Formats: sequence, C-alpha cells, structure tokens
Amino acid sequence: MGKQAIGVVGLAVMGRNLALNIESRGHAVSVFNRTREKTDELIAEFPDRKLVPTYTLEEFVDSLEKPRRILMMVKAGEGTDATIAALRPLLDKGDILIDGGNTHFTDTIRRNQELAKSGLHFIGTGVSGGEEGALKGPSIMPGGQREAYDLVAPILTEIAAKAPDGEPCVAYMGPDGAGHFVKMVHNGIEYGDMQLIAESYAVLKQVVGLSNQELGAVYTEWNKGELDSYLIEITSKIFDKKDEETGKDLVDVIMDRAAQKGTGKWTSQNALDLGAPLPLITEAVFARVLSSLKDQRVAASKVLEGPAAKPFAGDRAAFIEAVRRALYFSKVISYAQGFAQLRAASDDYKWDLDYGTIAKIFRAGCIIRARFLQKITDAYAKDKQIANLLLDPYFRDIAANYQAALRDVVIAATTAGVPVPAFSSAIAYFDGYRSARLPANLVQAQRDFFGAHTFERLDKPGSFHANWS
Amino acid sequence: MGKQAIGVVGLAVMGRNLALNIESRGHAVSVFNRTREKTDELIAEFPDRKLVPTYTLEEFVDSLEKPRRILMMVKAGEGTDATIAALRPLLDKGDILIDGGNTHFTDTIRRNQELAKSGLHFIGTGVSGGEEGALKGPSIMPGGQREAYDLVAPILTEIAAKAPDGEPCVAYMGPDGAGHFVKMVHNGIEYGDMQLIAESYAVLKQVVGLSNQELGAVYTEWNKGELDSYLIEITSKIFDKKDEETGKDLVDVIMDRAAQKGTGKWTSQNALDLGAPLPLITEAVFARVLSSLKDQRVAASKVLEGPAAKPFAGDRAAFIEAVRRALYFSKVISYAQGFAQLRAASDDYKWDLDYGTIAKIFRAGCIIRARFLQKITDAYAKDKQIANLLLDPYFRDIAANYQAALRDVVIAATTAGVPVPAFSSAIAYFDGYRSARLPANLVQAQRDFFGAHTFERLDKPGSFHANWS
Repeated sequence: MGKQAIGVVGLAVMGRNLALNIESRGHAVSVFNRTREKTDELIAEFPDRKLVPTYTLEEFVDSLEKPRRILMMVKAGEGTDATIAALRPLLDKGDILIDGGNTHFTDTIRRNQELAKSGLHFIGTGVSGGEEGALKGPSIMPGGQREAYDLVAPILTEIAAKAPDGEPCVAYMGPDGAGHFVKMVHNGIEYGDMQLIAESYAVLKQVVGLSNQELGAVYTEWNKGELDSYLIEITSKIFDKKDEETGKDLVDVIMDRAAQKGTGKWTSQNALDLGAPLPLITEAVFARVLSSLKDQRVAASKVLEGPAAKPFAGDRAAFIEAVRRALYFSKVISYAQGFAQLRAASDDYKWDLDYGTIAKIFRAGCIIRARFLQKITDAYAKDKQIANLLLDPYFRDIAANYQAALRDVVIAATTAGVPVPAFSSAIAYFDGYRSARLPANLVQAQRDFFGAHTFERLDKPGSFHANWS
Repeated sequence: MGKQAIGVVGLAVMGRNLALNIESRGHAVSVFNRTREKTDELIAEFPDRKLVPTYTLEEFVDSLEKPRRILMMVKAGEGTDATIAALRPLLDKGDILIDGGNTHFTDTIRRNQELAKSGLHFIGTGVSGGEEGALKGPSIMPGGQREAYDLVAPILTEIAAKAPDGEPCVAYMGPDGAGHFVKMVHNGIEYGDMQLIAESYAVLKQVVGLSNQELGAVYTEWNKGELDSYLIEITSKIFDKKDEETGKDLVDVIMDRAAQKGTGKWTSQNALDLGAPLPLITEAVFARVLSSLKDQRVAASKVLEGPAAKPFAGDRAAFIEAVRRALYFSKVISYAQGFAQLRAASDDYKWDLDYGTIAKIFRAGCIIRARFLQKITDAYAKDKQIANLLLDPYFRDIAANYQAALRDVVIAATTAGVPVPAFSSAIAYFDGYRSARLPANLVQAQRDFFGAHTFERLDKPGSFHANWS
C-alpha cells in the first residue's frame, strides 16, 4: 500500500473539512483523531473518498511519505502542545508539522524554535473562512521555515480560495509566528468591520428610523459599490431573515450580547505592546464586552437618561449616503491602523512582511474579503514602505471627500445619544494622525513636574528638566 | 548595638527617600545598595540621621529585628527576582519582604506564592507620589498576607500621606497581588486624567483660541471647584512657566511626544483580559503612542487636510464652562470604568477589594489626588456593591446635568478637526452603558451566519442557530 503525501490530525469540523478539501484536489489523506469515533464517522459518511483512517499516531505517521506533512487541527493551547509531544518521538528530521489552529503567535514562535532544535519544521498557519471556507477554499496565512513552506505550498495552493482574478489566497508570510500573527490581525480587523457595520445599523435605525426591510435594501445597495464585501452581503441577508418560530424579523429576536473568542483581544493587547495605535479595533473589542453586560445596561437604562428622541428631520437619502461614506472611511482608517500594526510587528520581530500580498490573500476565502482590499494591494505596489495607508493617493482622496460625512454622522449620533465608539474613534485618530502638533506637550510638562521624567524640546535635541516649583 | 525594625534595599531616589521618610518618624533604618557608592553617598549627605549602612546582604539581614521587615526598592522585574534570590537563604520563617516597585501584579502573585512555601511573607505595595511623595508622604497600597501587613502597618501608617481629614493614605488592599493591582489601575486612571486635561487644553486653545495666560487662569479657576486636584493645580502652574533660555512660555517649547513607562498599557491589557470595558484609559494610552509618532504626524499634516479653521463665534464664557463640565463628567466616566475594572478583578482573583477605602487612600499623596475622590468613597458607603459609579445618585446627577456639555464639546471638536479621543470615548461609553438595546444583535447574527457560533434570543433562554442560506 502506498503512502500519503499529507495527513490531518484532529477531525473536528475544521480538520475534517480541510481533509475533504485536500482530498477533493486528488490527494489521498491520512486522518487521525484522538478518539476513534470521529474517524469512523468521517469514513462512514464519505466511504468513496480517498481518506485513509489510522487509529494510532504510530500508524498515522507510518502512513505518510517523507518528509511527512502533518496538518494539526486540534484545540489551540494545551491540545497543540500535547499533540506535538506525542508526535515528536515518531518523527524524522525534515518532517513538517503544520498548526492550523487559532494559536497565539508567541506560542508558535516558541514551538517553531523548540522543534527546530530536533531538525523538525514547524509551520503556524492562519486559516480563515469558517467551516465552509475550510471545505471549499479558505484564505491561508502560513509562517515558518521557508524551505518547509515550499514543500507544502503545492497542496496549500490547491486548497486555497481563489481571488476574482484567479490568484490563490495563500502566500508565505514569514518566519516562525508571522502566519499566526497575520491571522490574528485579520481577526482584529474583522472585529472592527463588524462593529462599524453595527454602528451604521444603529444610526440608520435610531437616528433615521429605517425599518428592517429598508435596512436590508440599503445594505444590498451598498454591496454593489465600494463597500462590496462578504460582511455587507450577509448583513443585507440578515435583515431579510424571518424567525421561523415567531414570524418576526429574526434580527429583532436575537439577544444583543456579543460573544468573542479572544483573537480581537489579542490584537489589541499586542498593539499596546508594540506601541502601534489601534484604537478603533480596541473600541470594537470593548463594545462587545459592554454589550455582554446586558443586565447592567437594562438596569442603567432606567436610571441614566439621554437626549429626548426626535423624529428625523433631514434629507433621508443624503443622510444614508453620509452613513455609507462614514462607514467606508472608517473602514479605511481601521485598516490603516491594522496594517500599521503589521508593519510595527514586522520591524519588531524581523519578519519582513509583504503588506500588499497580505491584502491580496484576504481578497477571497476569509471573512473580511472585500473589493476594497485591492486598493490596499495597489497602495503597497506604488510604495512598499508607505508609513500609513491614509497617505496613499486613493485613500487620501477618500479622506478628503468623506471626512465631512463621518463628522456629520458622529455629530448626529452624539446629539441623539446613539453610541458610536468606533466611528468616533476613527475621526479622532484621523484628526490626531494629521496633527503636526498634539497637546502631548502638556502631558510631558505634567510628567516632568510631578516625576522629573524630563521632556524634549521642539527647538533642539536632548532631554531637559525644568525647575517647576 | 541594637537592631533596626526595618531595612531598605535599593537606594535609588525612591528607596532613599522612603528610608529618609521612615527615619524622620523616629526609626533607625538599615540601608543596603548593590553598589556601595550609593550607600556611602547617602550617609555622607545625611550624617546626622539614624541610617545604618550595611555593605553585604548578610550584614544587612543580621542588622534587623525579627521578624525582619525588608523594603525592596529595586528595578522591577529581574532586579526584584535577583534581590529575592539573594535574600531568601538569609531569611527566617515569618520574615517579611516588601516590594515597593512598579511591579506587574502577576509577578507579585507568583512571588507571594513561591515565598509562602518557605514560610516567608511577601507584600507587594503600590507607592504613589513620586520622589517628593516618597520623602514626605506617599499613598501606599499594600497587598499580601494580612498578618504580615499588620506587622508593618504601624510604620506604613506613619510614613503615608494624610488626607485632608487627617486619615493616613494607606490600607490593606487584599491578598497577594491586590496592592500592585490597585496601583496599576491608579496609574491607568492617571493616564486618563492627563489625556482628558490635554484634550480640554487642545479645545480651549484651538477652538476658542485662548492664550497660555488665559489657559493658566482657567485652570486656576477650575481648581477652586469640583475639579480641585493635584493635576489641575500643576496644569495651571505649567501655563505660567517661562522657558529660562528663550523667554517663551515653556509649554510651547516642549515637544509634543508623550512618553510612558507601561503601567497604562498594563491596565488596558488587563481590562481586555478581564472583559471589563476600559475604553477611555485605553484611548489615552493610544493617544500617547500616537503623539510619539511625531515625524509621521508632521508628514501627514502636509498631506491630509481637515476642516478650515474658523474664528470662535460662540459665547466664550459659556463654552469654557461647557469644557469644564465635559472634563468633569468624562473624569467621572473614566473612574466609573476604572472602579468597575477593580470590581471585575476582585471577583476574578478573589481579593474582596474595598472600593471606598481605595478611593479614600487616593485622596492624598498620589498623583490623582482630588477632592472628587470623596464622592467615590461616599458612593460606596451608600452601596458597597454598586455595579457602576454612574448609578450613584451624585454621579447620576452629574450625568444628567453635564452630558449636554460633553456632547457640545465633542461636536465642536469634531467639527473643528481637533482630536478628542478620550472625550468622544467617554460619551460613547455613557450612551452604550445606558442602552438597554445595543446593535450587538447584528454582530451575533453575523457570527452565526459565517461561523455557526449560535446566538441567544430575547424571548427565551438557550442557544440557537439559524439556517441562513
């Protein structure tokens, strides 16, 4: 019996769908799961597919061509460490372990370095697109040894999503934790996108008074233009969905308590570590947390009053267009922050990330796929070292033309008492970033006053302390 | 020769000033420094004080009464670990190590637990007030074994700052890392306070056009009312200070690039871990980071245009009063977030923090000392378990009466293109917290759509998944 070119460990939904995806491209795939039931279920469900069940790790490892290519789709954290520990004694130099879980990039750096001591290759890869993406074509962000990537690239390229221009959504991100890092920032950006859409919804509903039906039509329309993206598309569909039980619009039945799995939080925490301003995504993370305090909010709503509700008095169509512009410009600002974080990370961790390629592989398969990503790729094609996307001519023009709309929407929401933390943070960041002078001179004066922390001067280099008393 | 009741290890400015403070209350103090020069300098400078120099740790430890009380004022991190490792073999059961450095509370928890295995007590204590506070009376926030605290409480009480009502600004915070945690949140709150003041300065200068002289007068006036605080006081003095070299106002000569030592960042990162919304302080941390990108900002200011500058057309006095109200209400919101974080931490780490006492010991000695802290103590005296300070009648009335001013200031700044990330975040949090319904239902619908993450319903408990396609 021949050996397989690749095997998958961990047959929960993501692992099993990736195995099926690989198999569908003509490869026999060895599969293994910690409990044999999942393996048997998979084989029973797809008896005609070239899935080779194995029931011990020895059998699994022995069933693979050398150098072995092993895709681990196990529970991130202890699950990954346990799987590596069990596999390690069975592997040979040059074998390639691939972690496709949602792993914190610092764990990937650690594992990559530890395994390298035994001559084992370790690739940490982001896989975005959910269950369906895993089955049909995800966006794939692998990091690790370049030579190991080259050995798995043909298969990854086959199973990856294809962008509208036919390019596969996979590329080598960089050494050790680079792949999982890019996936983390992808997820942070996803938090930002979702919060911005939620705020546009709140403003359209509470300030303008749109019905769900009208909202569905608005997002459908927006999806035809610059906002064309997977998240806007599903948003338009959500407003059309009826609850089977009550017949009401389903969106009105769903509890307004947003959950999270922690990758947005990681992105914010890392931005704080790097010293890369990421306020918008961080506001989005905190907005989810605040939403989860439902009981407190309901209680507070009876104690804390806001502005009196007023019927919308302006031009509806004009205001809806302002919200569209506010959403698009805020999205630009969010990506400018996220890509600046990628750049800070690339400098700090010496990864030499290729930002244009990153935007490229986001164009299909993943949750944040959007027409607009091409503009980011274009910007980096023009200037690989651009400090901030807002400086690119296309995005600069968006800023020039859409900032008035963003200001109007923030003002309308603030007047009406509708919370727009991400929109507000977007315009504050924009105004801060374009300020040659910020009031931080006062902060430095205070720090020197109370703690002798010293200050720099505008007129000459050096570090100074004033005698304040 | 008799033995001393306490010794200080580490004679950099904070250690030396604390030693002098303790000595000034009538205690002889053993002192030790890793390099003998600092010890000799201290003794030479204060030959008549009861400071007992020691030149080996053996000599130092041997010079102390049992149980020994050792205050470590060394570089946080490796310095602390090295000092503990060197001291540990010389100590006896029941001895008390006190870490007065700016230590991350998780390190304090680890050290407390490790040393407890050898029967050693470990107190991690926040010490706030800078050099001068250390010398004359800091605010002190100790955590660790209660019985160990009781043995050092008399000395700590003597050296602590005294509040206006005469109460010493020291109290037992809770087990293991509780003291360093409270100090961390104190520092985060300090970041928020400073950023809010900086934004009030930016608005008064850029929107109203106040001169430094007028600004000095405004803050002097504000310091007489509910904003009465150390930071407002020094702000008023900063605007009066001339640069000795150029004769210009010093504030205009100082570089607008704010530095930081990381405790604000820790506070935000912890809030993200706890799931406690802390957007305002986090915006303040990111504002410092953004300010540090001076070169990028100067370059961006030439590319990205904002609204055209307009002379102020409103009622100056009324607008200045609106800024004062915006500042005070935003400060209330920031403390509501910070104290909610303390509460989340107390629940998570099982510390049983006493929030009213914490506000009490902030009233003097530390950087955030302010008249307003009494209102927080009062709120917790009325309701020890209040979920959020905004629900207290006093703060609720501030919210009712001042929210219009905060909205006006955010609107004026957003219109003028003046960045006010903390003010904006304050009103967004307030409006979010008082919203019985937030648009997070849409976020949950999206998550269920693309990832089958399920949602809750408003009308019945449970976890649901819709067939979206």
